[in-house]
Amino acid sequence: MRVEIVAVGTELLLGQIADTNAQWLGEHLAALGVDSHFHQAVGDNHERIVLAFRTALARSDGVIVCGGLGPTHDDITREAIAEVMNVPLHRDDEVVDRIRAMFSSRGREMPDSNLRQADVPEGATLIHQTMGTAPGLICPVGHKVVFAVPGVPYEMADMFKRAIAPDLAKRMTERGESSGTIVSRVIRTWGMSESGLAETLGAYIVGLDDHAAADGSGSTATIAFLASGIEGIKVRVTVRSSDEAAAVAALDDHEAAIRKVLTEAAGDVVFGIDDEAIEDAVAKALATDGLTLGLAESLTGGLAASRLVNVPGASTWFRGSVVSYASDVKFAVLGVPEGPVVSEEAALAMAEGAQRVLGADVGLSVTGVAGPTEQDGRPVGTVFVGLARPGHESQAVQFTVPGDRDRIRQYATIAALDYLRRSLARS
Amino acid sequence: MRVEIVAVGTELLLGQIADTNAQWLGEHLAALGVDSHFHQAVGDNHERIVLAFRTALARSDGVIVCGGLGPTHDDITREAIAEVMNVPLHRDDEVVDRIRAMFSSRGREMPDSNLRQADVPEGATLIHQTMGTAPGLICPVGHKVVFAVPGVPYEMADMFKRAIAPDLAKRMTERGESSGTIVSRVIRTWGMSESGLAETLGAYIVGLDDHAAADGSGSTATIAFLASGIEGIKVRVTVRSSDEAAAVAALDDHEAAIRKVLTEAAGDVVFGIDDEAIEDAVAKALATDGLTLGLAESLTGGLAASRLVNVPGASTWFRGSVVSYASDVKFAVLGVPEGPVVSEEAALAMAEGAQRVLGADVGLSVTGVAGPTEQDGRPVGTVFVGLARPGHESQAVQFTVPGDRDRIRQYATIAALDYLRRSLARS
Repeated sequence: MRVEIVAVGTELLLGQIADTNAQWLGEHLAALGVDSHFHQAVGDNHERIVLAFRTALARSDGVIVCGGLGPTHDDITREAIAEVMNVPLHRDDEVVDRIRAMFSSRGREMPDSNLRQADVPEGATLIHQTMGTAPGLICPVGHKVVFAVPGVPYEMADMFKRAIAPDLAKRMTERGESSGTIVSRVIRTWGMSESGLAETLGAYIVGLDDHAAADGSGSTATIAFLASGIEGIKVRVTVRSSDEAAAVAALDDHEAAIRKVLTEAAGDVVFGIDDEAIEDAVAKALATDGLTLGLAESLTGGLAASRLVNVPGASTWFRGSVVSYASDVKFAVLGVPEGPVVSEEAALAMAEGAQRVLGADVGLSVTGVAGPTEQDGRPVGTVFVGLARPGHESQAVQFTVPGDRDRIRQYATIAALDYLRRSLARS
Repeated sequence: MRVEIVAVGTELLLGQIADTNAQWLGEHLAALGVDSHFHQAVGDNHERIVLAFRTALARSDGVIVCGGLGPTHDDITREAIAEVMNVPLHRDDEVVDRIRAMFSSRGREMPDSNLRQADVPEGATLIHQTMGTAPGLICPVGHKVVFAVPGVPYEMADMFKRAIAPDLAKRMTERGESSGTIVSRVIRTWGMSESGLAETLGAYIVGLDDHAAADGSGSTATIAFLASGIEGIKVRVTVRSSDEAAAVAALDDHEAAIRKVLTEAAGDVVFGIDDEAIEDAVAKALATDGLTLGLAESLTGGLAASRLVNVPGASTWFRGSVVSYASDVKFAVLGVPEGPVVSEEAALAMAEGAQRVLGADVGLSVTGVAGPTEQDGRPVGTVFVGLARPGHESQAVQFTVPGDRDRIRQYATIAALDYLRRSLARS
């Protein structure tokens, strides 16, 4: 079963908004084992929407259309579908009542323009609206199908899960298609470059291709790399399989093998899987010993703290952060000795200051040069991280990170948090 | 001139990465006055890429292809273009030398796989690479054209500006097409809901449509609304015109008129234009009186500080932030009286504490409940903002903001910074 995604909206073509629906649908179709070979975006123009639908139906078995179901004169997806189906629209009284009820439950009167949202192509099935005013549509076109959903992301996602995914599963069963699946897993790393990861895993990747060619099992894996700033450098393993349990088992095997290769080459570089961010890894490492954390941040300007508070339950272990952007705040509040503030000495004193001022078990500091110009004779991208913790001598390390101000801040943040994670893991 | 954007990459179809190039190109083509009626995405499959190109060339005058120019076996855009052009590929020795030189300047040897990046369809013109290893291509197909650029966003943007935009302008002149343009401006607001803005500007929007219908000048304006979290609620005005100066003048008029309508209805809600974020507005307001700023943040966890340090030159006025996430950090460091920390009293004491501890002229605080559960008997979404400044009595205000933890933090941050901006503007 091949399904093409068509996003409708001139604002997409003009680049005024990003099309996040296509990405979401792509991911969810893949998880269902539905192929999606093409995506299209088209503006609010009747002839062009019809052409996009016909193009999609010619090369795919079904189409999911997002957008153009609103109440304004620009919303013409319903009319375009009716033309492709070669049927008239009729106004559905039950839908009118539903929309009217939604308005009156909010204490408002329904504008007449909303009546258009009750127009349904003859032969289409409704996907009842639960969040917005527009219903979705399931529209047969010969033996193919057009699903229409609103462009509002949460309305689209709700209707996909509630109506489209089950409908697609049923169609695949009827077609006698294996309910195969494409699943992927992200292994998050810090400490190696993207090309370093690719080289280290080169032999493993070649082995995958050879394996797939040799056994012809139809279960293949691909590996891709993606540098993602504060999210780390990601290694994504994607497996296609006829069976979901087998696919997940294959992902488990690949994860274990990749962890082994990376650990042997470069040590403890893997900090998380899928959505596990560096702050989650830090939270886990602190919880092992029941330690609380306080930060002293300079160039990162509060970015490290703002990530840590994302972790559910952070209030049990996160004390706070002294964002000492001005040098004399470092001296006066954190007790840093007067002198250069981009230095190992300053990082050490900041970490100990954070520990003391914030009453934390562990103090972590980050200072450095975000640019645009050098500071204290240190070039842009210089970062010092300091760490003070009970039963250990305070330590400081230097990193050099690339990029503009924003990327330097992101890299400095993940470098500092990863240094903390690894230090806690070692003892 | 109609140009279709085709993004190549299976990772786009699987939703593993978002296609930001299509948005960027859409915006830049519109600014050049080039129509773009369709976008497509297609995977790394020869037949399907060829089909996407043929589909695009049938309904548009030109195609910009992003991606598939890398050195690996998945990168097959060159071969697909050669098929559509019906010409062979030949290896360009000069490109080989350039790629080899790029590697050796980084102290590395060129892998043989990179030789593929020197393959050029016969009759194509090169866009020399300045950032990555892959050159771009300008490929005539009959009287139409395919432009190919790498998928890496900054390489794509560089080649578009340097080679594609001038080439398109030349083609439009040759075709005798007006070098029309679509330009837009974003008016950023805080303090009114999206529907409140739409209702307030309702009569103005109706007037625009009537005006366009009456004078038939071909210069039309549209207005759209977009809620963007910490970036505020945006009012976007888009103008299409045959003349760029006229379009900009029209935008100036619309901006002035919209500011007037909004100010009369709701006061000082406009804080910025286009890329001017709330932190830029705060920086400008502080600079007027030469004031320095210190923060005390609780639920925002450093987010407000991390935004302020984005402003170039922030070190001249930003002292820092005490991220007092734990209650007893508020008591011990900021001198907040023991008691409920989600309260007007706590916000006042935090603001004065920030002023004192950080040695700042102005102290701004934000405390509240990000959830998931209530705190101090206050429901999720409760936010108190405190402000201490020279020559004024300290003040605190309460806001209620919607959303999950992340959105509550974003709204709390913009609410606090906007309160500071307005307070400074008033005196």
